[in-house]
Amino acid sequence: MRRLRLGMVGGGQGSFIGAVHRIASRIDDRFELVAGALSSDPDRAAASAAELGLDPERSYASFSDMAAAEAARPDGIDAVAIVTPNHLHAAPAIAFLEAGIHVICDKPLTATAAQADALAAAVKASKARFFLTHNYTGYPLIRQAREMVARGDLGRIRVIQAEYAQDWLAVPLEATGNKQASWRTDPAQSGAGAIGDIGTHAFNLLGYVSGDHAVALAADLHSFVEGRQVDDNAQIMLRFASGARGAIWASQVAVGCENGLRLRIYGERGSLTWAQENPNEMIYARLGEPRQILTRGGAGLGVGADRWTRVPPGHPEGYLEGFATLYLDIADVLSGKDVGAPLPGLEAGLDGMWFISACQQSAAADAAWVVR
Amino acid sequence: MRRLRLGMVGGGQGSFIGAVHRIASRIDDRFELVAGALSSDPDRAAASAAELGLDPERSYASFSDMAAAEAARPDGIDAVAIVTPNHLHAAPAIAFLEAGIHVICDKPLTATAAQADALAAAVKASKARFFLTHNYTGYPLIRQAREMVARGDLGRIRVIQAEYAQDWLAVPLEATGNKQASWRTDPAQSGAGAIGDIGTHAFNLLGYVSGDHAVALAADLHSFVEGRQVDDNAQIMLRFASGARGAIWASQVAVGCENGLRLRIYGERGSLTWAQENPNEMIYARLGEPRQILTRGGAGLGVGADRWTRVPPGHPEGYLEGFATLYLDIADVLSGKDVGAPLPGLEAGLDGMWFISACQQSAAADAAWVVR
Amino acid sequence: MRRLRLGMVGGGQGSFIGAVHRIASRIDDRFELVAGALSSDPDRAAASAAELGLDPERSYASFSDMAAAEAARPDGIDAVAIVTPNHLHAAPAIAFLEAGIHVICDKPLTATAAQADALAAAVKASKARFFLTHNYTGYPLIRQAREMVARGDLGRIRVIQAEYAQDWLAVPLEATGNKQASWRTDPAQSGAGAIGDIGTHAFNLLGYVSGDHAVALAADLHSFVEGRQVDDNAQIMLRFASGARGAIWASQVAVGCENGLRLRIYGERGSLTWAQENPNEMIYARLGEPRQILTRGGAGLGVGADRWTRVPPGHPEGYLEGFATLYLDIADVLSGKDVGAPLPGLEAGLDGMWFISACQQSAAADAAWVVR
Amino acid sequence: MRRLRLGMVGGGQGSFIGAVHRIASRIDDRFELVAGALSSDPDRAAASAAELGLDPERSYASFSDMAAAEAARPDGIDAVAIVTPNHLHAAPAIAFLEAGIHVICDKPLTATAAQADALAAAVKASKARFFLTHNYTGYPLIRQAREMVARGDLGRIRVIQAEYAQDWLAVPLEATGNKQASWRTDPAQSGAGAIGDIGTHAFNLLGYVSGDHAVALAADLHSFVEGRQVDDNAQIMLRFASGARGAIWASQVAVGCENGLRLRIYGERGSLTWAQENPNEMIYARLGEPRQILTRGGAGLGVGADRWTRVPPGHPEGYLEGFATLYLDIADVLSGKDVGAPLPGLEAGLDGMWFISACQQSAAADAAWVVR
Repeated sequence: MRRLRLGMVGGGQGSFIGAVHRIASRIDDRFELVAGALSSDPDRAAASAAELGLDPERSYASFSDMAAAEAARPDGIDAVAIVTPNHLHAAPAIAFLEAGIHVICDKPLTATAAQADALAAAVKASKARFFLTHNYTGYPLIRQAREMVARGDLGRIRVIQAEYAQDWLAVPLEATGNKQASWRTDPAQSGAGAIGDIGTHAFNLLGYVSGDHAVALAADLHSFVEGRQVDDNAQIMLRFASGARGAIWASQVAVGCENGLRLRIYGERGSLTWAQENPNEMIYARLGEPRQILTRGGAGLGVGADRWTRVPPGHPEGYLEGFATLYLDIADVLSGKDVGAPLPGLEAGLDGMWFISACQQSAAADAAWVVR
Repeated sequence: MRRLRLGMVGGGQGSFIGAVHRIASRIDDRFELVAGALSSDPDRAAASAAELGLDPERSYASFSDMAAAEAARPDGIDAVAIVTPNHLHAAPAIAFLEAGIHVICDKPLTATAAQADALAAAVKASKARFFLTHNYTGYPLIRQAREMVARGDLGRIRVIQAEYAQDWLAVPLEATGNKQASWRTDPAQSGAGAIGDIGTHAFNLLGYVSGDHAVALAADLHSFVEGRQVDDNAQIMLRFASGARGAIWASQVAVGCENGLRLRIYGERGSLTWAQENPNEMIYARLGEPRQILTRGGAGLGVGADRWTRVPPGHPEGYLEGFATLYLDIADVLSGKDVGAPLPGLEAGLDGMWFISACQQSAAADAAWVVR
Repeated sequence: MRRLRLGMVGGGQGSFIGAVHRIASRIDDRFELVAGALSSDPDRAAASAAELGLDPERSYASFSDMAAAEAARPDGIDAVAIVTPNHLHAAPAIAFLEAGIHVICDKPLTATAAQADALAAAVKASKARFFLTHNYTGYPLIRQAREMVARGDLGRIRVIQAEYAQDWLAVPLEATGNKQASWRTDPAQSGAGAIGDIGTHAFNLLGYVSGDHAVALAADLHSFVEGRQVDDNAQIMLRFASGARGAIWASQVAVGCENGLRLRIYGERGSLTWAQENPNEMIYARLGEPRQILTRGGAGLGVGADRWTRVPPGHPEGYLEGFATLYLDIADVLSGKDVGAPLPGLEAGLDGMWFISACQQSAAADAAWVVR
Repeated sequence: MRRLRLGMVGGGQGSFIGAVHRIASRIDDRFELVAGALSSDPDRAAASAAELGLDPERSYASFSDMAAAEAARPDGIDAVAIVTPNHLHAAPAIAFLEAGIHVICDKPLTATAAQADALAAAVKASKARFFLTHNYTGYPLIRQAREMVARGDLGRIRVIQAEYAQDWLAVPLEATGNKQASWRTDPAQSGAGAIGDIGTHAFNLLGYVSGDHAVALAADLHSFVEGRQVDDNAQIMLRFASGARGAIWASQVAVGCENGLRLRIYGERGSLTWAQENPNEMIYARLGEPRQILTRGGAGLGVGADRWTRVPPGHPEGYLEGFATLYLDIADVLSGKDVGAPLPGLEAGLDGMWFISACQQSAAADAAWVVR
């Protein structure tokens, strides 16, 4: 099977998520990175390309140059990964979609609703595919959970509790020049704070697993760190189309929390509890029976979870493997194969944009309900 | 030191909490049960008294008879434990307070605001003391947590996340004649569902530990079980006097949860995480340092937590010991000794009544904020 | 039901295990402490008795006086708890047995083989009963485990891994005058170090649960703390009558361990894992199925575990309740009731003495096998 | 930096460890797989090579052809990964070493002492380097542990408890034609059972972390599964050069255990506890202080653990990343860079061979001590 040729926009030296995408794309050996517009700073772009062993000719000064040039090459890239700050998602994505090149875009979709609208139009107009890397959907046990809910193992869902707590912004890190903190806390670049950076992951995940849609939310957003221009803590209540209720707590000031994404979903007959920091285990409770410890690839699981597991149970897979699974799936989709699980794309992106804007709208109205 | 003479109202055969109070009162050997009005059913009252080895003369047909007779005896009871359903707290408590007998009352304070007002007046008018058994405040690590917050170990508090999840009412147990379920789901007897039965514990606990006061709440209450007349699931957002934000999730339909009371409190410099089901451990995080596992009576704790621990660390104490600590403290208070920690009483009870009524008022207004 | 009258030998001020026995005897209200020879120091004996509210007339200067006097009283004690250091178990136990008074003796049986022989003869000659407080057998999940093994849930047992690790003797505490450390590290008073103090508990527990008998052991004993006269660390390999293999690690110098008694038992078809520090949970694995989390009194357990549980699942019971269960069972046995689980007595005591002496004999032969 | 050219011997279709080596070699993008002798079956070799996108010309029928041809090419491989069953490690390793090509060999070193001697001679005679993939040494927290022990954080080491428990051989899987089970339980191919397959990992790891050397061991080996020709359970006692004591339990019949490699190391002043199945956490206890939870890349760690961590704390890395770290280090070593941690090679391999043979020798003498 031919490796797909991958380009990258953003992800130069100092980038966090760019390196993650590159490792993720390599793990299952379905992509080969061959081109990039790695930085808006030409020197950094060139140095980054050299470090990665790219052909200097395919290290571009801008994403528009890159889209044009790669589309014109017989050996041009099949897909591009866009790993820039949020406000720079839409423009390159549109450029590549218009050039007929598949787009793999980091989340959230965009920084503004206007950008999202433009991108949505481009996706619909293009023959190329658009993928959004809500990477936590790549964890095998998350897919197992989704299957279990879908086939009714838990009965009708009643309550969904999600949370995503970190502490890296408990202090004004943006005031120190930290690159990651700076753009994430600048409303012009990020569009939102904790709700966009991590809240969207939690929101996406609970929808992915439950198959349910939030129809209303009430959000109490707050900035605890003095001078911060975006929310760093959010308490959110949710109502779902099915009648289920739920809550999301997203915080970047929760001292002691590293990357505390956690999902609990309760139905009439059963429940599932999963935490990202030890993603190879999930607790499955059935009413009136002892709780079970499900493990990735372990005893008693359905076929679903096995598909995306590379090493036997007890040999932990982690964040990079979960991310890699999205790349593996994308390669399969682009090769015309059935993947067996939905892949986040435009719809998930627009859903996340609704979440962000509904939170902000609710907060502006003292946490009143915002109905979709 | 003379054992205090204890009476009991309620707690006859089939009672859950009556037996708990009796064990709790025995563990530290400061009380002796000598009288009771154990049931409103005379036969059950007599049978229960016989089982407990009470003098038949001191097994009373009613709490009013008991209050009068015990007050008149030279060896009358020092204190009475009231362990009846919520709507039967106020009347006996008032009777004993008026008779000059100390009252140890189960929570919540009462089933209605009118009952609470009457009881509050009686407490203020009496020389006798009134205690409310918010038993989870008796856990040594909860007291350790309170001390740590009070002395500033965590810095200014930002976020408080509490939850209390159970699953025993995931099905319509009240329809089966189950006694515990029946009165707890009857609004006339309980006054509220999950928010009163368990939510008040969570609310009390977060106030006890944080020393902070909720000034506003928004509550989305729901009954998932068909035909149920009280709430069985509650999502609640909180705002505190200090500016902190928080949330409580209380549910009695959370399949797989036994008695999942959990408290997390985050300050500027540190956080604490504690779960009732393994109460001998608490996680203490300090910003920029590895998390610590504090243990009851264990290495590195302050004097506070040692006072209420009976056996060395690693020898687990549990629910009954935590409950017993309230009885121990009450005995000390009644003996004029300093206890070293606040004991829940009328104020905590009224605070809980505010919580219940504010939740109901908020829910009636589609989860609008209710400000204290 | 009449409360049984209990006496106590040892357990005066400063005793650890005496206070534990007293609480344990009170929890289920089946015993009343009425007499004692609480200390060999007359002043301390009197002061201790006064603190406990004993009738001064029934505070004795010696166990022999006590045995004689109590046997002669119409309201004399039914049973005596012996909570002295190991070398002082045999003499009082024999005295009370000869006086026809039931004996509840702390473990291990005695400090020497000669004492054990004498005590065994007395037990056999007496109509009174002899109980040994291997208290960890009182945990409900231990009894659940025993039932599960007995009825074949695990299939034929293959491997048993037990350990008991503490750190309180990681430093020469005995050199500081610490009373608990001093007698436990004095061979004349204790007869052995870690193997006697805690190793016997592990050995007893694995036999209790497995129903199997160790037929050979090889022990590598060591004293890490300079100047210590008894073992403070032991690695022990075991062979069982059934063909199963096993190991015990007992250590009192394992920094970070509080009271780390842990048992794992593996059969052909299943396994159980239990740790004393969180005794309300046990992991049950069945070959080819997800592991289950069994909880005390929780969903899906057999009748066995329910019998010895006082509060619902999720309301943790601990060390004192486990200990209390032995007292509850003893009260039932002495009242002629069926208990439903074996209670440790002389046989368990002699088994423990074999364990201690076999370890010492093996260690003296450079850890050669000692065959029973 | 030029990617190193990698070849592979073994690892064709159906291989477990070959796929692991390939992923591990890709994660950090320092190797490119360009040649292979992937199977002794020519058809499977060709099909496997095609699947992996190898140039057909560089898919060889035998390792000897491959060594000769690659050594002769200007663009020949820099290193070869040998991922065959144990008895087929020595011959290819020697061939490539003699051809001047670096060798990355799976563990254990060989199946027999004679093979080990021959290989050792070849390593010493060659200018090429020899690496042994004891992959668990690549976990960042294992390297953190090693540093902490080396700089004395724990004080003098007293006790080391290691275990490696699995259950996949709890039934006679080898009788079903399972390829992995078949060669591992065939003495001619594997040389040993559980002690070679997993025991050597535990033995290697405890030496790696402690820096101590076992000078004597006593091993009780057993085969529980009927008809099995190698050990499937091992209880091993250890004595170390420093005077420390320890134990290893290795089992492949421990129902409920997936890949339970666990290490605990106790010194005079501190201890460390680590378990492979959740490798991103390690408990660090200091005498008289609360235990700490160290996390990979997390707060308060030394520089050491940061070097080998790709994503921030809370983003779990797993088995593949730990394995990849060995490949990363090997690339650095072959590029003349300092690595900062020892890499397992011939010495570790010979140490493992001593362990295996000493276990077998001890078992043959009824678990007598075997002194190095």
